[in-house]
Formats: sequence, C-alpha cells, structure tokens
Amino acid sequence: MENKFINLALASWDIQVSRLKKILETLSDEQLTGSISPGRNSGWYILGHLIAVNDAMSEILGTGKRACPELHSPFIQNPESAALDRPSVSTLRQYFTLVHERLKRELATLNEDSWLTRHEAMTDEDFVKNPGRNKFSVLLNRTNHLSYHLGQLRLLY
Amino acid sequence: MENKFINLALASWDIQVSRLKKILETLSDEQLTGSISPGRNSGWYILGHLIAVNDAMSEILGTGKRACPELHSPFIQNPESAALDRPSVSTLRQYFTLVHERLKRELATLNEDSWLTRHEAMTDEDFVKNPGRNKFSVLLNRTNHLSYHLGQLRLLY
Repeated sequence: MENKFINLALASWDIQVSRLKKILETLSDEQLTGSISPGRNSGWYILGHLIAVNDAMSEILGTGKRACPELHSPFIQNPESAALDRPSVSTLRQYFTLVHERLKRELATLNEDSWLTRHEAMTDEDFVKNPGRNKFSVLLNRTNHLSYHLGQLRLLY
Repeated sequence: MENKFINLALASWDIQVSRLKKILETLSDEQLTGSISPGRNSGWYILGHLIAVNDAMSEILGTGKRACPELHSPFIQNPESAALDRPSVSTLRQYFTLVHERLKRELATLNEDSWLTRHEAMTDEDFVKNPGRNKFSVLLNRTNHLSYHLGQLRLLY
C-alpha cells in the first residue's frame, strides 16, 4: 500500500538532489574549486563530502554497497586542510550521477515496514533505547544534511 | 492513532530549530551582525528571514496567525541591500523564542488527515493538480529551508 508520508519525504530528497545537480550544471570545475568564503572549505571538498555521505546511505539503509569507499578518508574522515590526494572535480561529477541514480532505485525498494526498522549502523540493543533512529529518520537527516551544504555551495555563485 | 512518519518529521524539525537556538546562544549580537562571507547577507538578515518564513507557517498550515507580520517586508520581500528599518538582533532573539514555541504547540494539533490536506496558500483547483503540495510537504520544505540557512550561519563562527 502506498504511504503518502514516505512518498513526500522521497520527493523532498529528490528536490535537494536536483538542486545539487543544477549547481553542478551551472558552475565550472574552476568555480567549484574555489572556497565558499575566505579560509573555508572549497566547493570541491563539499561536493566530495556530500557524495561520500550519500553513497554510504546504501549501507546504512541496507539496500546495497557503497560505490566509492575511497571518498571516506579524504572527504569525511579528514578535513580539507589534511591535503590528501582527492579525486578531481571532473571525476566527482561522474560519481555524483552514479551514486544518486543508484540511490534513487534503492530508495524505491523499501516498503513501509522497512523504513521503520533500525538503520544498519546501530545495534538491536541501541534501537530498543532509540526507536526513532530508524531508516526513515536517516532519510530525513540526510536530506537536511544536503540542504545545509547546498546553502554553502550557493555562495560560490 | 500515532503516525510514526509524522512524528519523525516533527522530530527532524525540532532538531533544526534547536540548532538555530544553539547558534543564538553561542554568538553575540555583534557576531550575528557580521556577514557570512564578504559582500553576502549578515547573520542578522538570515535570522530575521528564518523567523519571518517560519512565523508564516502558522497561516499556511491553518493553525494560527503570524505573530510578526512586520518582518515580511524587511526580511522576505526585500533583500538586505534595501537597507530598510529592521528590528534589532536583540529583538529578533525574542521573536525567535515566541514564534518557535508557538509553532511547536500548533504543529502538535494537526492529525494525520490534516497533514495531507492542501496548504492554505493554494486554491482547491491547484491542489487537484498538485496533491503533493500539502501541509506535510510544507513541513519538510521548511525544515530543509532552515537547514540550508543553518549551513550559512555556521560560517559566522
């Protein structure tokens, strides 16, 4: 049976992803390499961070495997100042499409009951204590996380 | 009957509001008056904008009246560069508490059916064409809007 609340949350996710897509279509590689504000992260780092975080959703939701585990160290575990080797903006553009097209397919496979089960990064014991930390809360949380960084990427214009 | 999806979306809203509250507790009036990046909006303007947009939710959701309609012109209708008279940061801090405490009470009054009805800023005819534009989608949209600007306010630290 269709659950309208889930469909609306998925639509909200899609809207934020399409906003990121629009930013990638609008800005050049050079513009994306610039900082959002003097001394702050570059668009490059934020883009890699968003792809890495969203790529990991597949494993947290239990719908698949991360496609780009190599993004974890340079874009999640370490700050930009660590100056690690990082995939180029041009490569990240390809990863963006790959990761979000796959996610769209995977998100559509979860039914109402699955959305309320615990996310895969927590134990059954923790879930008993925090039943709100389920897959639906992961979706809402990641949508907000994406919006948060979209507000920063907007400063590259 | 309790709807877990609604409760999770309300929890997600509360989390973003508490993040804004934390920013207000952490930053001084002087810090909030600064720009998030050279030549960009000030924290002052963004704070007023968020309060004005969230204040208007009461009318869009049909749960009450805006408390601060005077914020519409300086913080929504006009850009910061219009240099209109604006309430001080100190006054906005009071409005923040007033508006969000009222919203919390009002959001709790909507039941499952009401969340799926059209929002009050659109006509019945438009709703037939776009049934996804209901009150639940307003809640998700405003939560993302808040996150978007939180990402910018974070640059004031």
